[in-house]
Amino acid sequence: MKKLINAPENAIQECLGGFLAAHGDLVSVSFDPCFITRKTPDRNKVALVSGGGSGHEPMHGGYVGKGMLDAACPGDVFTSPTPDQMEAAVRAVAGGKGVLFLVKNYTGDIMNFEMAADMVSGDFPTKSVVIDDDVAVKDSLYTAGRRGVGATVLTEKICGAAAERGDSLDKVADIAAYCREHARSMGMALTSCTVPAAGKPTFAIGDDEIEMGVGIHGEPGRERMQLLPADALVDRMFEAVTADLPYRQGEESIVMVNGMGGTPQMELYICYNRVAALCRKKGIRIARCLVGNYITALDMQGFSLTMLKADAEALSLWDAPVHAPGLRWGV
Amino acid sequence: MKKLINAPENAIQECLGGFLAAHGDLVSVSFDPCFITRKTPDRNKVALVSGGGSGHEPMHGGYVGKGMLDAACPGDVFTSPTPDQMEAAVRAVAGGKGVLFLVKNYTGDIMNFEMAADMVSGDFPTKSVVIDDDVAVKDSLYTAGRRGVGATVLTEKICGAAAERGDSLDKVADIAAYCREHARSMGMALTSCTVPAAGKPTFAIGDDEIEMGVGIHGEPGRERMQLLPADALVDRMFEAVTADLPYRQGEESIVMVNGMGGTPQMELYICYNRVAALCRKKGIRIARCLVGNYITALDMQGFSLTMLKADAEALSLWDAPVHAPGLRWGV
Repeated sequence: MKKLINAPENAIQECLGGFLAAHGDLVSVSFDPCFITRKTPDRNKVALVSGGGSGHEPMHGGYVGKGMLDAACPGDVFTSPTPDQMEAAVRAVAGGKGVLFLVKNYTGDIMNFEMAADMVSGDFPTKSVVIDDDVAVKDSLYTAGRRGVGATVLTEKICGAAAERGDSLDKVADIAAYCREHARSMGMALTSCTVPAAGKPTFAIGDDEIEMGVGIHGEPGRERMQLLPADALVDRMFEAVTADLPYRQGEESIVMVNGMGGTPQMELYICYNRVAALCRKKGIRIARCLVGNYITALDMQGFSLTMLKADAEALSLWDAPVHAPGLRWGV
Repeated sequence: MKKLINAPENAIQECLGGFLAAHGDLVSVSFDPCFITRKTPDRNKVALVSGGGSGHEPMHGGYVGKGMLDAACPGDVFTSPTPDQMEAAVRAVAGGKGVLFLVKNYTGDIMNFEMAADMVSGDFPTKSVVIDDDVAVKDSLYTAGRRGVGATVLTEKICGAAAERGDSLDKVADIAAYCREHARSMGMALTSCTVPAAGKPTFAIGDDEIEMGVGIHGEPGRERMQLLPADALVDRMFEAVTADLPYRQGEESIVMVNGMGGTPQMELYICYNRVAALCRKKGIRIARCLVGNYITALDMQGFSLTMLKADAEALSLWDAPVHAPGLRWGV
């Protein structure tokens, strides 16, 4: 295993130390229990709290900031954060308008966020929305139902803007549900990731093979197949994503081509080039896009495609100012 | 070779196609000859033009935009752009206040930018500043003297702000020279990069080895050594960088911990954590920082450290608004 770490058991804490050193103008970090909040919490709005296993940076900590999350709880690598982390994060940021938990659909996350909601429900109104956009497989390694992947990033941005403008808990939760219903994703991997504590690749894969439909923890996808040219890979993923949520001519989409952590930007643009061509061909209007590393799987090489069918309100919320370590515009 | 490409010979054009599709609100792309300009050039200011081989994305095309470059010329992978590209780019953006070429110190780039300057010198005042911040080695594979690496990103930002506020060609060139004199860098690699047309890694390296002082094309560094914990690697690089340009107690620095393309963000934060600790220990004030992929070497795993000793003017120019595909704030 070749990694820029010191000891696997210290990786998260040292990563958070560097994160705080780099972004201390925007965020505060509690190291025990472990959570990230905005530097200046605003308790007069709905608090958006997310979290999940580490190894997906910049998600979620990189999305804490004005116009996006209020707090994020990083677990160990690919491991759910615990209810006590979530409870402490809520108490550090929430007020009378309540808390919306944005949860990716993994069994551990679901269970722990439910426990956290119970722990704070006497003090704050709470709601949860579970993101499950990955069309690749149902009932995967850590999941009952679909996995939650790239749509999480888009949902955090859009709901963050809604909370920022003063929407009620019900309204922000409705917008999260809108995102959940209108977003679909699929990923693929050229290589496995390597979890630091494991010290070896999560899965074996041949020099001419890829994993189509891979999860963000290296979970199996739809099929192990031969490496194809980028356009042919994009075609399959685009087909899977748009078959699950069809678009009519002229409908607008927020499109994300996301790197899995070890993928060069050049390759992401090559993939996006094909996505853009397919959208033109199908009459889908790409209203906004992201091309880069937004929800990663450690050092995995590969990419994912996320498409969110966006109405005028979603686009307006998308365009609202955001100032977080991992996403910034309008500020 | 596992890459998300179609054919190596089409990779640059398809990458630029995706780049334009993603960022057409900010930039225009000419495909033949190949260059990127701001969507709305401003001929009433000094034009900043850079360029170099592709494979270092987001540099340079990602730095074209308000407050940074006016145009960038991408060559083939790790190959200098040609004088005709540079000439066409200049004619697309320049006006009476002239052109500053920001050139990384590689033999091909130097030669071609000199030829381009000759080709346009009858029509525009021109100056060139050569960036050569890499302390690792002198007279490397493609270089007489030091290589130009991470300081290029910082110089493009700072000079872009100077040009944007209306500084003269002489003044912007002086500021570029300031950056050149006050910035130092060093990189390291865990793995080689693979050039698409070559189809195999640029250099062989053992499972327990790293290349200390590597160049952004995989050129040899100072030594091939055993993999060490991240902190020990950072210590060596920090020592090399600050030995070459010593800091006095309390001096301010713009610090960049840059990923080489295949490095997860978690590992970059772990490295930055150590850089921040070393700076605290030495009394160096980190005034601003970047932690992420800014000047890459295709899929290489590793990172580089750049430190620019910044006076009040450099910091003020750093903080000025920038809106480019690869860097954005204040807009």
